[in-house]
Amino acid sequence: MKITKLEPEKKQGLVVVITGKGKGKTTSAMGMALRSAGHGMKVCIIQFMKGDIYSGEWDGVKLLDDLVELTPTGKGFCGIQGNPYPFEEHRQNAQDALLLVDQKMQSGLFQTLILDEINNALELKLVDLEQVLNILRNRPPELHLIMTGRDAPPEIVEIADTVSEVQEIKHAYRRDIEPQPGIDY
Amino acid sequence: MKITKLEPEKKQGLVVVITGKGKGKTTSAMGMALRSAGHGMKVCIIQFMKGDIYSGEWDGVKLLDDLVELTPTGKGFCGIQGNPYPFEEHRQNAQDALLLVDQKMQSGLFQTLILDEINNALELKLVDLEQVLNILRNRPPELHLIMTGRDAPPEIVEIADTVSEVQEIKHAYRRDIEPQPGIDY
Repeated sequence: MKITKLEPEKKQGLVVVITGKGKGKTTSAMGMALRSAGHGMKVCIIQFMKGDIYSGEWDGVKLLDDLVELTPTGKGFCGIQGNPYPFEEHRQNAQDALLLVDQKMQSGLFQTLILDEINNALELKLVDLEQVLNILRNRPPELHLIMTGRDAPPEIVEIADTVSEVQEIKHAYRRDIEPQPGIDY
Repeated sequence: MKITKLEPEKKQGLVVVITGKGKGKTTSAMGMALRSAGHGMKVCIIQFMKGDIYSGEWDGVKLLDDLVELTPTGKGFCGIQGNPYPFEEHRQNAQDALLLVDQKMQSGLFQTLILDEINNALELKLVDLEQVLNILRNRPPELHLIMTGRDAPPEIVEIADTVSEVQEIKHAYRRDIEPQPGIDY
């Protein structure tokens, strides 16, 4: 059987938004990182609001031949039970992350930039809509930009090329099954 | 900041189903493969109906230190325009894949088994519901089983621990943007 190797006539950076309440948003972004690495493309992942709980992808991406760089920039989910950090601290972290995004975006080193949980950071007002729209306006035309997190605002959906909403049909935690490594973190 | 390392009191294999028409099902499964690899877990991916078009994950997983094995077993999407293979040939491929699934599942070598597009293979009658239910009944209790593809049947959803439905809000191809490497394949 002949294997077809696709090659777009026009290479084009896509804006991809993965939103919704179900499992599979960050996970999907990690899949695109893996797929990009398979093509030899370089990927930068900046995680908003994550950093206080270890997740397997932190070490997973290290296996990918220096093709994928991942930086958790946060202190966990702002406002949820058990998170001890005040709003101002979360916002400062997210604002610092935006500076990093801009720097990575303009570096020319990456073909794919993943802004994990940025939709959530927007919803929680750790970053402002105008700041995110500026990222979208300033991105190099060949750079893929992937944005994950619940509650993507309509202004971002409007601009994006591909938008998926992951709905929860059921989730193990609702039956008190603990998060399992490899699957949930 | 202290980083929490979760560790479930009870390790438990989960059945995860990622279905729906939107982008992010196979991608999400690849993310779980990457995450699992980060934990040093071994993953087996068997792709149904895929094999005729190169996708970046084929090479991406090779970078993961021999932790992830991927086997495309198919000849493309049965019945779609441009696919030259008869139904019987697609079904035979899928039936052979089921034997491989059983062998890998019972080998004890893997902590995570991904059956990519098996829901689709079910819908197209390349495999039978009873065959897939048998896989679910026979799986070792600590093995994670991830099943992707559109149209997951209610009998599988019923058994699964976590089910997400990825809805398409929009997709670049509807505006005639070609599939882009790293993102779409």
